[in-house]
Amino acid sequence: MIKAGIIGATGYAGGELVRLLLSHKDAEIKWYGSKSYINKNYYEVYQNFFEIVPDKCMDDNLDELSEIVDVIFTATPQGYCSSLLCSKILSNCKIIDLSADFRMKDTEVYEKWYGIKHKSPDLIQEAVYGLCEINRKQIKDTRIVANPGCYPTCTTLSLYPLVKEGIIDVNTIITDAKSGTSGAGRSTKTDNLFCEVNENIKAYGVTDHRHTPEIEEQLSYAAGQNVTINFTPHLVPMNRGILTTSYASLKKETSYEEVREVYEKYYKDEFFIRVLDRDVYPQTKWVSGSNFVDVNFKIDHRTNRIVVLGAMDNLVKGAAGQAVQNMNIMFGLEETSGLKHVPMFP
Amino acid sequence: MIKAGIIGATGYAGGELVRLLLSHKDAEIKWYGSKSYINKNYYEVYQNFFEIVPDKCMDDNLDELSEIVDVIFTATPQGYCSSLLCSKILSNCKIIDLSADFRMKDTEVYEKWYGIKHKSPDLIQEAVYGLCEINRKQIKDTRIVANPGCYPTCTTLSLYPLVKEGIIDVNTIITDAKSGTSGAGRSTKTDNLFCEVNENIKAYGVTDHRHTPEIEEQLSYAAGQNVTINFTPHLVPMNRGILTTSYASLKKETSYEEVREVYEKYYKDEFFIRVLDRDVYPQTKWVSGSNFVDVNFKIDHRTNRIVVLGAMDNLVKGAAGQAVQNMNIMFGLEETSGLKHVPMFP
Amino acid sequence: MIKAGIIGATGYAGGELVRLLLSHKDAEIKWYGSKSYINKNYYEVYQNFFEIVPDKCMDDNLDELSEIVDVIFTATPQGYCSSLLCSKILSNCKIIDLSADFRMKDTEVYEKWYGIKHKSPDLIQEAVYGLCEINRKQIKDTRIVANPGCYPTCTTLSLYPLVKEGIIDVNTIITDAKSGTSGAGRSTKTDNLFCEVNENIKAYGVTDHRHTPEIEEQLSYAAGQNVTINFTPHLVPMNRGILTTSYASLKKETSYEEVREVYEKYYKDEFFIRVLDRDVYPQTKWVSGSNFVDVNFKIDHRTNRIVVLGAMDNLVKGAAGQAVQNMNIMFGLEETSGLKHVPMFP
Amino acid sequence: MIKAGIIGATGYAGGELVRLLLSHKDAEIKWYGSKSYINKNYYEVYQNFFEIVPDKCMDDNLDELSEIVDVIFTATPQGYCSSLLCSKILSNCKIIDLSADFRMKDTEVYEKWYGIKHKSPDLIQEAVYGLCEINRKQIKDTRIVANPGCYPTCTTLSLYPLVKEGIIDVNTIITDAKSGTSGAGRSTKTDNLFCEVNENIKAYGVTDHRHTPEIEEQLSYAAGQNVTINFTPHLVPMNRGILTTSYASLKKETSYEEVREVYEKYYKDEFFIRVLDRDVYPQTKWVSGSNFVDVNFKIDHRTNRIVVLGAMDNLVKGAAGQAVQNMNIMFGLEETSGLKHVPMFP
Repeated sequence: MIKAGIIGATGYAGGELVRLLLSHKDAEIKWYGSKSYINKNYYEVYQNFFEIVPDKCMDDNLDELSEIVDVIFTATPQGYCSSLLCSKILSNCKIIDLSADFRMKDTEVYEKWYGIKHKSPDLIQEAVYGLCEINRKQIKDTRIVANPGCYPTCTTLSLYPLVKEGIIDVNTIITDAKSGTSGAGRSTKTDNLFCEVNENIKAYGVTDHRHTPEIEEQLSYAAGQNVTINFTPHLVPMNRGILTTSYASLKKETSYEEVREVYEKYYKDEFFIRVLDRDVYPQTKWVSGSNFVDVNFKIDHRTNRIVVLGAMDNLVKGAAGQAVQNMNIMFGLEETSGLKHVPMFP
Repeated sequence: MIKAGIIGATGYAGGELVRLLLSHKDAEIKWYGSKSYINKNYYEVYQNFFEIVPDKCMDDNLDELSEIVDVIFTATPQGYCSSLLCSKILSNCKIIDLSADFRMKDTEVYEKWYGIKHKSPDLIQEAVYGLCEINRKQIKDTRIVANPGCYPTCTTLSLYPLVKEGIIDVNTIITDAKSGTSGAGRSTKTDNLFCEVNENIKAYGVTDHRHTPEIEEQLSYAAGQNVTINFTPHLVPMNRGILTTSYASLKKETSYEEVREVYEKYYKDEFFIRVLDRDVYPQTKWVSGSNFVDVNFKIDHRTNRIVVLGAMDNLVKGAAGQAVQNMNIMFGLEETSGLKHVPMFP
Repeated sequence: MIKAGIIGATGYAGGELVRLLLSHKDAEIKWYGSKSYINKNYYEVYQNFFEIVPDKCMDDNLDELSEIVDVIFTATPQGYCSSLLCSKILSNCKIIDLSADFRMKDTEVYEKWYGIKHKSPDLIQEAVYGLCEINRKQIKDTRIVANPGCYPTCTTLSLYPLVKEGIIDVNTIITDAKSGTSGAGRSTKTDNLFCEVNENIKAYGVTDHRHTPEIEEQLSYAAGQNVTINFTPHLVPMNRGILTTSYASLKKETSYEEVREVYEKYYKDEFFIRVLDRDVYPQTKWVSGSNFVDVNFKIDHRTNRIVVLGAMDNLVKGAAGQAVQNMNIMFGLEETSGLKHVPMFP
Repeated sequence: MIKAGIIGATGYAGGELVRLLLSHKDAEIKWYGSKSYINKNYYEVYQNFFEIVPDKCMDDNLDELSEIVDVIFTATPQGYCSSLLCSKILSNCKIIDLSADFRMKDTEVYEKWYGIKHKSPDLIQEAVYGLCEINRKQIKDTRIVANPGCYPTCTTLSLYPLVKEGIIDVNTIITDAKSGTSGAGRSTKTDNLFCEVNENIKAYGVTDHRHTPEIEEQLSYAAGQNVTINFTPHLVPMNRGILTTSYASLKKETSYEEVREVYEKYYKDEFFIRVLDRDVYPQTKWVSGSNFVDVNFKIDHRTNRIVVLGAMDNLVKGAAGQAVQNMNIMFGLEETSGLKHVPMFP
């Protein structure tokens, strides 16, 4: 039985980690860390866990925690994990960090887009970017997983085969993304109030959203060259779900079958990536509550561009689910263990 | 392994049965009945089941089906099950009917409120009303379970201890209920269109909703006398969830502790009924996707009335979940088997 | 041209006052008071007013303001208006207070339910409760209008004819109310976040909501006797709209026509109160953005109770619209002036 | 007083025409055409008009209607208007067609994208594309206005200055559009049910939506060359609103100020087009219920692309509002007459 601790257990991603780990047969939660609610019953913060979780919220003590668990999930703001992580902690347990701290290899890029100094640059090389389907092998052997951002997961997975196989001109990529509001977290800002989000749609972070360099770095690895993209996220009046609509020019005229084959090559055996039937486009509700990413594409022969669509649950495959998938890989468990939830519709 | 067939598998309750049975370790679905979609892949109707359910939709053939399965769930319109059920079928397999056909013992009441002639009145006596927490023993031994309606489940369970113990004057009961829109089914009526439901709330079936006599019959059994209530359902712009707010006069001045004790007496050991902490009131989101019913109450000493609140997921405890719970009881399985889904929030 | 000032112009009710006064041919806004946004362009707080309102937000200076305007609307928290109002201000201009400060004649009741000491009890007698259809005459001559609460407006107007005419037993009244989230204001609490409200319904203020004594006082005047009610509000995932469902026992058997006649007697000539056709029940979307209150009822002969439904837009008739209606009456304008907005559907 | 008739008065766009014309001081509705509801009170179809519209629904008789009104609005399916319109009708009154029948000059394009034969190709040349801000002069003198589609209005207006002034490479334009569900009309399809739309987002009409050639034709006129674009609409869980996010490559490095100046040149004096302040991006809620289009842009210097955002109410500027604006122009009224509704927030 893997003993897990969660720092930041009372955010939305933290709560989802709890939901998923509770149904995981080989893991148990030993620490519900939440600085804001210390000593409060965890279920009082999230009453869905009433009579299910008897534990109290604990302080965010990474050192103490590392001595009693096998793995720590840090579902914390940027800068938290990197400012506390050290070799002593890493000698005690594994770390799966849901923040951006270890996602980018270049600290300059991190510091520019996030506006914070990186406190443990020495650990960056060791960290593995936890996009499971792509980096499975390296994840297996690392002590630090940088759990990918929600948008990067959906964008990168849906474009990866096209980029890797050189089907598209990588410098024409434009990703227009739409997210449910849980992606904005549980902090109390006017912008996240029901009346401001409901019956409304807006773009935000236009040209400067922090997930841009993360996507670019991953696509660059796949392309073997520098990739620069346009990325625009939008806030949608729903709780969960991300849909990415990506556009790119095809390098040459290409048929449906050729592209389909490329997707099959990479994803045929991937349990969590479903390439939908021809002319069926992903909808966020079809993956709600599950760790699936649904993907499909359409070629526009008039413009010789391809439109690529990806949908997933931002709190599952986009955060807590992928974190558990990473844990499974790191500990040699069945990769789908605790993650076979059937999507809930409607 | 229990072999299950579903008639009406492409309605919302049918889809939820599929979701729940897929995660049930002792049951497997052998028949996805759907007259409207015969020979179509089931996942094409509900793409959340893509790469999960490979089966095609089958005709609604109850006879043929009864020979190959152990239990049939009929998630069909009123009148369907009662018009086809016969002793031959019942000698082959057990029936869990999600319609109203076998819920009321008095065919006159059924025929008056539903406006259809009952086609198999001889089977009514044998049928057991499948409100699991109340009728567990009889369910164990029957071949026909009448799976309770969504509103009656929430209303009856939340009021039961008060009625059974004579705490309230049963002829003062008023239940004001609120339901998500999946309760209206997947039929294409103008009233169920997104733009008609969204940003709107309305009452419907005022004084004449069909669940009224069903609730009254069950409360009458508990009270040992005839109970007549006021019941008003409302349509709420959300997919899932029922909240019932019931009002009744206390027979005499009663303290919080006395009432609490009554609830503990009946529900302390019930896994699926959670009596919340004092001053915490049920919210539908806290039970979403799960088989829980959350219950609480508050005494208004100014009026000597009690306000009783109940919340559940109308598609789970209000339909498919309770149906699976009934199956578990009928086949001697662990009652919670396949039903321990943690509620999903947000 | 009436010169109006608004204190609290950046709350939701304040914003709605601005929307309504902008289309009022006989009024102009001279002061957008908002302590939190002093010197900021008003349209930067609410971009719907971009290129429409060029003014900046001003401080909440009641004294100074009273010298330059004819009427002040205070859309402020409880306690604000009563702590600053004085005869000097009242000699300069009229006051329409959207808070609860002057709604109840008994300061003890106010202080008990609101938990604050009343700072100007001497002005309470002069204040008139601005339920326009009921108190039109007194409103005409007062300097202080206590603009009614949202729930009390809908509840009282829908029950008034029955209470006034002695049709119902007033001590059996139970009101189950449902409100959109704008009623909770624009303050940043976790409970008001999109993800907490969306796909959810809950009761709050069970047995102790502050609008209870306000409704009771008004119904008591109508009844000529003390009225005590049960009142339970619920939070619904929509921006605007209140629906009240009230239940009461009929004093004697009464026909539809008799009750209908009572409603016609009081409301036939009321522009803003629409008694719907038989068997058509109010929906909040049908009054959205307008000053209408839609009302209807159904008699349940089985229980000899009547179910009374009322729907209105909580920000219009429940706040800003009724405030403008009061202004119209106080200044001798056409009562419907600036308030003939056709409801917006969908 | 202009006498107006509406064919298709019971669709969502028809209902919005009624709402707007009711508040128009120089127009009155003489005919509520609705084949499906002949002889039914109009308010029974849309209860928001209860006690406001006393008229009954009439048959869709274009000939008869043309003799009693000055203008006919056809808010009907494609093919209706073109199959009935003739010179006799046009000698009696003016036509504002909200369908696509007269939007494209090339019948081949129409027939290919809409899959119907055009029945009155001879009238196409006379028809003017009613994008008011661009074609004001020609609208003034025509008898037939082809009222633009919702997506084309928002897309074209937001891109027009850039295309007209040659700022962007027109063959790099990609428009990713998001619409509320009222755009799908009031027809009863499973896809439009509340439970299918709520908590969901999806793309549809990928690469082949019918508004594509309409946008391309208008942008081609502006560019003075053939323009081919990528256009992908998405369905968003809200009633009203369209947001378009367009991407294009700048022909050369361009500063914010240069682009801003171009927008000012075209739109500074346009009442209904609001170019927002720098770094403020359009939100659909800010224009809800109004005839405004909010526009803004951001240059991405990393990719030398520009991101252009437009937001409007699909039922107002995207349908009924622009139709009334066209009427105003055709009849020499103040262009903003009856259209100065302040947007409703929240």
